[in-house]
Amino acid sequence: MSTPTPHPLTLPLLAGERRALAKAITLTESTRPDHEAQAQQLLADVLPRAGKSVRVGLTGVPGVGKSTFIEALGVWLADQGHRVAVLAVDPSSARTGGSIMGDKTRMPQLTVHPNAYIRPSPSGGTLGGVARRTREAITLCEAAGFDVILVETVGVGQSETQVAAMTDLFVLLTLPNAGDELQGIKRGIMELADVCVVNKADTNLQAATRAQTELRTALTLLTPHDAPWRPVALKASALSGQGIPEVWAQVQAYREATDLDAKRRAQTAVWFDDLLREAVWRRFQAGVDAGQIQAMRAGVQAGTLTPVQGVAALLRS
Amino acid sequence: MSTPTPHPLTLPLLAGERRALAKAITLTESTRPDHEAQAQQLLADVLPRAGKSVRVGLTGVPGVGKSTFIEALGVWLADQGHRVAVLAVDPSSARTGGSIMGDKTRMPQLTVHPNAYIRPSPSGGTLGGVARRTREAITLCEAAGFDVILVETVGVGQSETQVAAMTDLFVLLTLPNAGDELQGIKRGIMELADVCVVNKADTNLQAATRAQTELRTALTLLTPHDAPWRPVALKASALSGQGIPEVWAQVQAYREATDLDAKRRAQTAVWFDDLLREAVWRRFQAGVDAGQIQAMRAGVQAGTLTPVQGVAALLRS
Repeated sequence: MSTPTPHPLTLPLLAGERRALAKAITLTESTRPDHEAQAQQLLADVLPRAGKSVRVGLTGVPGVGKSTFIEALGVWLADQGHRVAVLAVDPSSARTGGSIMGDKTRMPQLTVHPNAYIRPSPSGGTLGGVARRTREAITLCEAAGFDVILVETVGVGQSETQVAAMTDLFVLLTLPNAGDELQGIKRGIMELADVCVVNKADTNLQAATRAQTELRTALTLLTPHDAPWRPVALKASALSGQGIPEVWAQVQAYREATDLDAKRRAQTAVWFDDLLREAVWRRFQAGVDAGQIQAMRAGVQAGTLTPVQGVAALLRS
Repeated sequence: MSTPTPHPLTLPLLAGERRALAKAITLTESTRPDHEAQAQQLLADVLPRAGKSVRVGLTGVPGVGKSTFIEALGVWLADQGHRVAVLAVDPSSARTGGSIMGDKTRMPQLTVHPNAYIRPSPSGGTLGGVARRTREAITLCEAAGFDVILVETVGVGQSETQVAAMTDLFVLLTLPNAGDELQGIKRGIMELADVCVVNKADTNLQAATRAQTELRTALTLLTPHDAPWRPVALKASALSGQGIPEVWAQVQAYREATDLDAKRRAQTAVWFDDLLREAVWRRFQAGVDAGQIQAMRAGVQAGTLTPVQGVAALLRS
């Protein structure tokens, strides 16, 4: 097999050029067929250089201080020489067309840090589309030399499951209000968490400690999803910086305790399966007349044939 | 078009024979190709006779008293001459193979009522599979003359969204513990609710009233999803029967306030689209060598090619 000429962005991207990275991610977000082909060439070019980062998913209900926490953690890491990329997954921005997350004003210090790169959530498209683009953005950031990837989600939807399927571990941020701290956190999200952090511990240390104890109890009730690792509960204050090193120590402890290679291989298989399903569906759509699908759907809605009959008729044609 | 001979179960089903209904639902749950074909013929036969029921989804966290509430509501309706079918959707039973919901011992009075029919959650298959079978079971129950279909979900997963897509309205059951009543309820589920009921109001009337007020406040914060209907919050006691008629009155009020025909047409379109996607995927799987997919997935996991390249190679072949 002859080696094809690399994409023009490949070399500057591998050299860690921030503008090339931004352009590359934009390319993966485009729906123009020629852009898609280019993006896939670029990804194939850089894939051998990807995979060497710590991938952390972060979530928490609105008001928990996600931006401030991510900024505190990010600046602390970047100051030590880590290269930190922050990506956001917000499917609601897919509906509104605008991105409410990842805008740079939320993280003023990290935005101007020479070791950091912040990318808002891709807008437009389905949750699946946003998730796919985020997976590709992780690959591109890694190829550009970023060794810590923080993926932020809004914490109110199904994007957490998607992000847990592309990160090494998942951090759940909560609040110190005793009695309220579990309120609003979906059990399903709790079950994804590897590290729980009671944020804003500076506002009320006693309440934060109580919340931490309650979280610990709640975590013991759940079946560990990444045995032998047992999810931990910590306290931190993004404002004072207190607890941030301890959070990172737990991230490292998690990575040492679990078989990360096996986890990532399984994640890649899921990625492949998702893409395959999507591609099969797109190929079908391209091969049939959209009007034909529409007509069949109308017949089904009118009750003249069952949905299954409509589907069968469509597949026969 | 010549009329094909109806399926042997069609006439007894339309006559309302309970055994024929049970057999028909079992047929739709089978994965044997000849059973699937028979089930589709049967559904086509009876579809014109379906659609004449009140379809209610019900959910609530474990411990809220779902079974007792559904039994109380069901018996109250059946005593008035309504024919009541209870279906359960529990995707967790798909994993364990056994059904934890819908077993008849949970609703002893309703089980023996001549006007009622209780069907446990289909086991095996994905959440999508369970949902599809539940849609078909609704159609079959309606064809058998049941005019109230209560669809129960476990309240901890994604099945609520699926059930909301096949019922006329959604009832959320909660507990009177003030401060706790919103705990554990996912915001997403709350957003689906058309009628909220504080159950077990007999245990502590004061707390139940407080919980009702808090629920009302919480509901006003959400964007109404079925305008002009605004979700309501009620109190009830499944044990004493208190509040049950009021819940049913709100179900009727909802149906009068909203354009149910439009909602059902939209639901049918979603059903059709889901089935089409699933059928396209199954046809693809039938046409390729499973070993070939497996080999490509292994290559992707080993990092020798990107997921997108693997998918493209598979589609070319």
